[in-house]
Amino acid sequence: MGLIVQKYGGTSVADEACIQHVASRIKTSYDAGDHVVVVVSARSGVTNDLINRASRLTSKPDCRELDMLLSIGEQETIALVTIALHALGVPAVSRTGAQAGIITTDQHTQARILHITGGDIKEQLDAGRVVVVAGFQGVSDKGEITTLGRGSSDLTAVAIASFLEADRCEIYTDVEGVHTGDPSLIADATLLKQMDYGMMQELSSSGFKVVQARAVQLAERYKMPMVVSSSKKSSAGTSIQDELSSFEGPRVYGVALDKQQAKILIEGIAHEPRSLAQLFAALKAASVEVGMVLQSDSRDIKKGLSITVPHAQLHAASAALEVVFDRLGEGRIIDMGPVAKLSVVGAGMRSDVSIMATLLAALAEAQVQVLMVSTSEVRITVVIPVQKAEEALRFIHSALGLGSKKTEEALTMQVG
Amino acid sequence: MGLIVQKYGGTSVADEACIQHVASRIKTSYDAGDHVVVVVSARSGVTNDLINRASRLTSKPDCRELDMLLSIGEQETIALVTIALHALGVPAVSRTGAQAGIITTDQHTQARILHITGGDIKEQLDAGRVVVVAGFQGVSDKGEITTLGRGSSDLTAVAIASFLEADRCEIYTDVEGVHTGDPSLIADATLLKQMDYGMMQELSSSGFKVVQARAVQLAERYKMPMVVSSSKKSSAGTSIQDELSSFEGPRVYGVALDKQQAKILIEGIAHEPRSLAQLFAALKAASVEVGMVLQSDSRDIKKGLSITVPHAQLHAASAALEVVFDRLGEGRIIDMGPVAKLSVVGAGMRSDVSIMATLLAALAEAQVQVLMVSTSEVRITVVIPVQKAEEALRFIHSALGLGSKKTEEALTMQVG
Repeated sequence: MGLIVQKYGGTSVADEACIQHVASRIKTSYDAGDHVVVVVSARSGVTNDLINRASRLTSKPDCRELDMLLSIGEQETIALVTIALHALGVPAVSRTGAQAGIITTDQHTQARILHITGGDIKEQLDAGRVVVVAGFQGVSDKGEITTLGRGSSDLTAVAIASFLEADRCEIYTDVEGVHTGDPSLIADATLLKQMDYGMMQELSSSGFKVVQARAVQLAERYKMPMVVSSSKKSSAGTSIQDELSSFEGPRVYGVALDKQQAKILIEGIAHEPRSLAQLFAALKAASVEVGMVLQSDSRDIKKGLSITVPHAQLHAASAALEVVFDRLGEGRIIDMGPVAKLSVVGAGMRSDVSIMATLLAALAEAQVQVLMVSTSEVRITVVIPVQKAEEALRFIHSALGLGSKKTEEALTMQVG
Repeated sequence: MGLIVQKYGGTSVADEACIQHVASRIKTSYDAGDHVVVVVSARSGVTNDLINRASRLTSKPDCRELDMLLSIGEQETIALVTIALHALGVPAVSRTGAQAGIITTDQHTQARILHITGGDIKEQLDAGRVVVVAGFQGVSDKGEITTLGRGSSDLTAVAIASFLEADRCEIYTDVEGVHTGDPSLIADATLLKQMDYGMMQELSSSGFKVVQARAVQLAERYKMPMVVSSSKKSSAGTSIQDELSSFEGPRVYGVALDKQQAKILIEGIAHEPRSLAQLFAALKAASVEVGMVLQSDSRDIKKGLSITVPHAQLHAASAALEVVFDRLGEGRIIDMGPVAKLSVVGAGMRSDVSIMATLLAALAEAQVQVLMVSTSEVRITVVIPVQKAEEALRFIHSALGLGSKKTEEALTMQVG
């Protein structure tokens, strides 16, 4: 008998049949004698539908009102899941983010959790009830409804699990767990049985959508074991925990693809710290997330500076840059447009050049142009044209020997 | 410059175009210098859709969870209306029932308002903002989301208007105001310029859906002037206020039809107070609303007792009665089924038999069978077969001279 937090995403609660299926899975845990807290997302499509309704009224809806609007998606799901549990004879009660005491900052649509009071969740669990909590939402100390950013139901689940000192936080999704690459793009991607927090964060922030990087970061901080598995199939899934103890040499965990990126190539900026500072300050003021920054020629920045930004922020970024160029009296954008980032994530990547060599050789063979490269201890990222990105992903996955023909244990040797 | 509460129903906010139209109407009041509080319902169809979702999971959804579910309908609308106001440059902020401090009992789905704290509505109005409040919902003193029963956005509007001591409460709907009969059934129904609280309650509880009886009752208690008019057309509508001072003789305000009724004819119950008490106690315990009660023969109740109940409660009522018959060892249902109630509402109805005479003569001429009759000071109700109900309504409306060919002022003379 333990205390488990289970999170079900939007596709797992998409309609009444899905909700009944989720309820029966929760009942299995409940019947096994576990205390269960369930965190759910909005039904898939609902959040986008609500955003579209607001967008038809104005191009820039107020963030506070957007939170008022978007939070109803999860509120609908908690009620429906609880009703489905009742229908199976499982005592259950629903709680909004506010009722569950998820206290946040007042940065609407991008709030951060300050602390958790838990409301009466512990009492409800002690009374033998399953508690169904709305993910993604919280409440500011002024009583305003806030949301935590897209995909943050994972964060809610980990936060509540940590607050309750749960035995584990189970993330249920539409795939069987974390694979070496997106299984919808790579037919033979290997399911990974184990993963450590740091690697999972790298994979998530490189484009793996299976679990939110921010949630994994919080789990690492509170040493909360996570398990990612399928809400449909019965599978052990992937367990995410503290750094895996035994490995030798480089080990590749997965290949991630992010197609929602853009690059901007800038020319003619003086190699002066003040100019560069102004440039990045302007991007920050425009809320642009700068990804990679590369100098074309290490001796002369004037010859070219490339940056990557999320594609959705490309227009805002270029507008902000033009203002700085005007003020400085120098600099111009000579190229910009969509790109993809392909990342290989693993341990000991920088210390062993074999993976970089394999990667670049494979891309050359596949005739994929490499626009930018960056490396860190745990990741190699190449920026490539969007058109060939999925093909390149499959090619690299295969070249690195990550296919499921090999057992997971053999991956290290293959690559090392 | 005054303080106005405006309520917009579900058809007035059905989609983005409607919402933009509502926002422009609110802006007109705001630009005229009035403080404006807006109360809105869920978009039409949303509440039924949510109920259907719950019904597909279980035949008896938990009332607390139903409230959690249903309250999202209004929460969606307040956010969208507020966003539409912002798009027109009107400062505005939305408030849920809980945030507006609508404190209720904890009878979920049928909660009653205990008191109103108002939250920060007054401060928001003072700061020059339009406040958009979710109708139909409140919060119990335990922090649980409650709802006030179908059609209760009117009640929310009157309650907030009374709390704020507003100059008036404007109810916007899809008709131009209160007519002498349902304008969708009676082509020449006359728009009434004025109406008193008592008459309006009678009309509402007799089948006029234009404004909720409970809301009118509250308005009467706090002497809150109400105006019912169209959200689409520009019209002075109907003003509802304290008893109209000057009239002579009977005056008919309108003819109402309620087709959602059923009758049950009972036979063989002894004329004993205890038996009758058990019978009505059982109906009350089954939450059946008993409407009319008539004895077929004033000297012998055994010969027959007819009651009317809402059609939706017919099954529950008959089941409850059978239990009592078993216990008493006597009594049986000899007939039951759907009926319509047709009511003529006006002042001085009992003191002058001319209206009753006109009514019965007209029904006889139209060959409509009268199953039951009941009268009060302000209402005559006949129970008739559902099949001929709409035809009878038009016939009576015409026979009483209520058509718009006559001016409203002439109605009294016509009938008197």
